[in-house]
Amino acid sequence: MKVRGKHIRSIWLEPDGWSVGAIDQRRLPHDFVAARLTTCDAAADAIRSMLVRGAPLIGATAAYGVALAMRADGSDAALVSACKTLIATRPTAINLAWALDEMRSVLRPLPPSKRAEAAYARAARIAEQDIAINKGIGQHGLALIEAIAAMKKPNERVNVLTHCNAGWLATVDWGTATAPIYLAHDQGLAVHVWVDETRPRNQGASLTAWELGHHGVPHTVIPDNTGGHLMQHAMVDLVIVGTDRVSANGDVCNKIGTYLKALAAHDNGVPFYVALPSPTIDFSIDDGVRQIPIEQRAAEEVTTMTGRTADGRMETVRILPDGSPVANYGFDVTPARLVTGLITERGVLEADRAALLAAFPERVTAAAE
Amino acid sequence: MKVRGKHIRSIWLEPDGWSVGAIDQRRLPHDFVAARLTTCDAAADAIRSMLVRGAPLIGATAAYGVALAMRADGSDAALVSACKTLIATRPTAINLAWALDEMRSVLRPLPPSKRAEAAYARAARIAEQDIAINKGIGQHGLALIEAIAAMKKPNERVNVLTHCNAGWLATVDWGTATAPIYLAHDQGLAVHVWVDETRPRNQGASLTAWELGHHGVPHTVIPDNTGGHLMQHAMVDLVIVGTDRVSANGDVCNKIGTYLKALAAHDNGVPFYVALPSPTIDFSIDDGVRQIPIEQRAAEEVTTMTGRTADGRMETVRILPDGSPVANYGFDVTPARLVTGLITERGVLEADRAALLAAFPERVTAAAE
Repeated sequence: MKVRGKHIRSIWLEPDGWSVGAIDQRRLPHDFVAARLTTCDAAADAIRSMLVRGAPLIGATAAYGVALAMRADGSDAALVSACKTLIATRPTAINLAWALDEMRSVLRPLPPSKRAEAAYARAARIAEQDIAINKGIGQHGLALIEAIAAMKKPNERVNVLTHCNAGWLATVDWGTATAPIYLAHDQGLAVHVWVDETRPRNQGASLTAWELGHHGVPHTVIPDNTGGHLMQHAMVDLVIVGTDRVSANGDVCNKIGTYLKALAAHDNGVPFYVALPSPTIDFSIDDGVRQIPIEQRAAEEVTTMTGRTADGRMETVRILPDGSPVANYGFDVTPARLVTGLITERGVLEADRAALLAAFPERVTAAAE
Repeated sequence: MKVRGKHIRSIWLEPDGWSVGAIDQRRLPHDFVAARLTTCDAAADAIRSMLVRGAPLIGATAAYGVALAMRADGSDAALVSACKTLIATRPTAINLAWALDEMRSVLRPLPPSKRAEAAYARAARIAEQDIAINKGIGQHGLALIEAIAAMKKPNERVNVLTHCNAGWLATVDWGTATAPIYLAHDQGLAVHVWVDETRPRNQGASLTAWELGHHGVPHTVIPDNTGGHLMQHAMVDLVIVGTDRVSANGDVCNKIGTYLKALAAHDNGVPFYVALPSPTIDFSIDDGVRQIPIEQRAAEEVTTMTGRTADGRMETVRILPDGSPVANYGFDVTPARLVTGLITERGVLEADRAALLAAFPERVTAAAE
């Protein structure tokens, strides 16, 4: 989407034809800086350190990580080692596992000397597929926004609430939760987005607000505590969030706090949608609430906050008393019963096993194998 | 409660017998500094700037503010002016209005020369009454914790979740939501508190964590997004929060985000209690969700964060992109249907009009007058 009036993606092949460029998302929203990744380890570090984040972008970065590894050494051992390094970076990112499976299945049959070229081609296709998927999500989600807009009075806008960043920065382009919003905005619909700050890493305040602002979409940042009050007072027309993993029964694993917004939406009759590319569906898990492992992250994400001082320096400040312990669960799981619909590239589906299997019959076979 | 091993209150009369001491809560948790208030305007500023905060402490501060005004000028005009200045500082603080009514009804009949002495005496009594009320709340809430503890296995602790600061720092001593916790801890019960960070002002992370830590109560600070996940996984035995105002029908106005925790408690069968001194009940409001006005606060509370750098400097950092607008609602209202019980100084009551009127019959007469 647009930054300073120009169209840009979150990850790209550099003009040298082999190194990989990515926006250093840790430096947003204050600095817009690109990183150049030249090794598989650098790609793994980029994922681990959250230089890149978001399930689809992590998948694309991992694919390029394999390509970088194959460029250096196309051997079986190097392929195994690259996949092992990359899979270890983020345990809950199902797209990461999916992208690595794709790369392995393409590369294994090839002789080592052919693997680098094939890996770059497959990585590029994964990136293009992500964009196509997101546009598909956008088209299906757009219909939901249009339906709400049709019931509004003139000059009333459609208010969408989102949590965390499932925007184009989390994908290669368009985003998942944001794709319907960007399409609606680009078509001239009056859309306004309530952006949850999303503690502790503030992906909403720092990334979603940044990308909506640069693309020109009206938005308002709110503390994570605010959404319930807004929904009680009819200030939210629909919620659209992304997800890191959807289980076969339609439970939605997403950034910690999503479940609380789903409860508030349910309590106030506000539709709660989850936008997802189908690789995010994990047909091997039957009960998301009980079975999806929840990553615990570093205490420093909660105890400190990084930002820019009035005179332009970046500083990290401690906001807790010394000695107070912290818990930092990265995700929660929203039960399917609270989900109005899953916006996929193949349409808006009910959040249940039958609907998911009907829409993705090829995955049934895969899951049974 | 205890700070550095010594018992201290949040507000006190200085040894000079007339000026008023208070902990400057804006400097917690990093610096423990007292402010000395010498005028009514200083007391009003202390409330407005959140040097003091918390409904009961605001009431006590306002009472001492009237005393400071009467010391300077005991005239009717000065009394009217002091009350007008003080009531304007916080529109949602019902205890503020209550304390000022008390002061006015005591002082109006007296000749100006007698008012200062009477005002100090009444302010001191308001402070002592607050402590007595909170100990009463503590005793009734303690029974709830004891009942849960009795069902635990040896070495299992009772996990309480709280939001914002309804601790002794928000009152004169003991706190409201924390009074049962301090009593349980002091009696040797194994209690552990999940402390919601409470964005945007972080009263949980900076104040509740600080006071629990100094008193020695085991606790863990969590982002506001986390409570739902903890409740889903049986890691919370009960929720106890404070409140700024309870309407006659039992709706609870408290720090923004309380409603989301009540929804999660309800969804997971976790008891959700609200601790309150009875002056917090506003019998003039029948429908809290619709009728309680919600204060909107400054954008800077959301756009910036203040804390201590690694080398000990206090810094304020901006955490949002330039130009992103912000909404900052101070409170939300939890519908009575989500409240398991109201812990008052007269016992644990159902959150409905009949129970409130039965427990506080003298307020029926007052409301009817």
